[in-house]
Amino acid sequence: MAVPENVVGTIKQSSPPKKVIIDTDPGIDDAMAIFFALKSPELDVIALTTIYGNVRTPTATVNALHLLEFAGREDIPVSEGFRTSLRGELKERIADFVHGADGLGNTYPTLSDRKPIDTFAPDYLIQKVNEFPGEITIVALGPLTNLAAAVECDPTFAKKVGQIIILGGAFQVNGNVNPAAEANIYGDPEAADIIFTCGADILVVGINITHQVYWTGKDLEDLGRSDSKFGKYLYAASHFYATYHREAYDIDAIYLHDPATMVAAVDPSLMTYATGAVRVQKDGICKGLTLFNNSNKVWHDPTDWCGIPPVKVAVTVDRERVASLLKERLTAP
Amino acid sequence: MAVPENVVGTIKQSSPPKKVIIDTDPGIDDAMAIFFALKSPELDVIALTTIYGNVRTPTATVNALHLLEFAGREDIPVSEGFRTSLRGELKERIADFVHGADGLGNTYPTLSDRKPIDTFAPDYLIQKVNEFPGEITIVALGPLTNLAAAVECDPTFAKKVGQIIILGGAFQVNGNVNPAAEANIYGDPEAADIIFTCGADILVVGINITHQVYWTGKDLEDLGRSDSKFGKYLYAASHFYATYHREAYDIDAIYLHDPATMVAAVDPSLMTYATGAVRVQKDGICKGLTLFNNSNKVWHDPTDWCGIPPVKVAVTVDRERVASLLKERLTAP
Repeated sequence: MAVPENVVGTIKQSSPPKKVIIDTDPGIDDAMAIFFALKSPELDVIALTTIYGNVRTPTATVNALHLLEFAGREDIPVSEGFRTSLRGELKERIADFVHGADGLGNTYPTLSDRKPIDTFAPDYLIQKVNEFPGEITIVALGPLTNLAAAVECDPTFAKKVGQIIILGGAFQVNGNVNPAAEANIYGDPEAADIIFTCGADILVVGINITHQVYWTGKDLEDLGRSDSKFGKYLYAASHFYATYHREAYDIDAIYLHDPATMVAAVDPSLMTYATGAVRVQKDGICKGLTLFNNSNKVWHDPTDWCGIPPVKVAVTVDRERVASLLKERLTAP
Repeated sequence: MAVPENVVGTIKQSSPPKKVIIDTDPGIDDAMAIFFALKSPELDVIALTTIYGNVRTPTATVNALHLLEFAGREDIPVSEGFRTSLRGELKERIADFVHGADGLGNTYPTLSDRKPIDTFAPDYLIQKVNEFPGEITIVALGPLTNLAAAVECDPTFAKKVGQIIILGGAFQVNGNVNPAAEANIYGDPEAADIIFTCGADILVVGINITHQVYWTGKDLEDLGRSDSKFGKYLYAASHFYATYHREAYDIDAIYLHDPATMVAAVDPSLMTYATGAVRVQKDGICKGLTLFNNSNKVWHDPTDWCGIPPVKVAVTVDRERVASLLKERLTAP
């Protein structure tokens, strides 16, 4: 198999590469995931769509444009998405304390002059799944508002999208916003419940998985010392993110939430999955909690999980191979 | 150590035995737990209080009186408790499909002529913890309405009760009423949240534990063939319960929910525990879900788990020793 010179790794490439749209709120680990995707021959990144979460949506958009310029991939369009949740709530909780005020670890890089395309992200998603039915993989790294709007606007969307790979949820573990909820789902629980129940081919990677996949301080130094401009960039951007991890989790390491999820797009065999219905609690103290029916029990009374199309939820991960594949590709010249 | 003749087992008896009040909705596995408690020298059962759940409260009361008569322990008073949830809702979901219409596997035994005492269960609980401050262990085998009413009526109750040992909740696993909720907590989520947050010494045994503790069909036959009237009684009562387990779980075994919890009163060393705050979701699709903050994370924003007194949640169990201790004592002549 001919492998492009700038590609490292041993994944067998299925041809042709997957057409991927990354729905993203960059974000330091979003930057890692985007760069990793661009360096992965298994993926053909056809666009980025933006969303709030780690930053507000306008910042996500300029950061997406900046990251593509840095990567020399200004051929890839950026479509701006929702600035509020599906029900119109302005996101209260922007994770600037995790990613810095600029979303990039307070490195404040020079931004691109390029503009996003005129098409609104949900409309863009609808266009693309109709243009390439069954072929588009959406990797969703933020709240699911853009995707839910697409599902609500186009009743055929769920069947036409190839696969939706989601970083979101906390399955049978505590959340990271509070003990109940993971940040992306907490950002728009209504949208998340629409997506989990829409009938699309969905693969979910929750923090039960991504809290197992990390780089240590030593790994980050290896990135900084590498001959890769991506490695050096991410090393610099990660100082702020690593400080947050020390303070919040008391660890000398950073969790690889978004990049681990992108690995599931490149090589899903590095995780194992359980299949069943997932629902999202929409209010109360457990707002944003993702609940997977992992039971074979025959329920006596109908439940809110009955009749819901199943999704695939990652339950185990080969954490060393995921972390090392990411490092290999992001330190390669 | 002198051990009464009718006692089997190798647990070291601390003296004096724990004064135990069993709050119960008998129920087949309640009957097991009650008989086991009466045969355990580590425990001094001073009363039963009754609650709805497996059956409605009046049936729980006559069943409690019957079980004590059968055991020859008519010296033990029965105090009837709430017939509805704390907020006045009549329990919609009575588990007659698990325990039979009579709560005792449709064996319809001859009931006792004895009456419950005149004191309402929450008042009785308050009386006893004030009479024996720090000495009363309440083993709660149904919805927590009686206990929550006691906490609400007597601000000193939580500090005066020795320990509350609860069968309830589904920690990091699916529930048994629906994917979110375990039956006892689902029966009165408001009451459960009052108890979990009241500051008492609380030990919780959820179905994450009790689904590991079971008797097989063979074990039940051993009970039926034993020289113990208790074993024979429970064998007969368990046919209905075993049929439910085959249909709902596709297993030739019965879960020992209530008796395993009573073992935690007899010998807490047969389980291990994590300590932290537990809250209960009160509405929505996850109504009745128990959420334990098992995280060491430093939360950025205050959460509904902050400042809540910790409880002990059972996280592992020596299932073979628990199941065999129960069997030994309930088959001993």
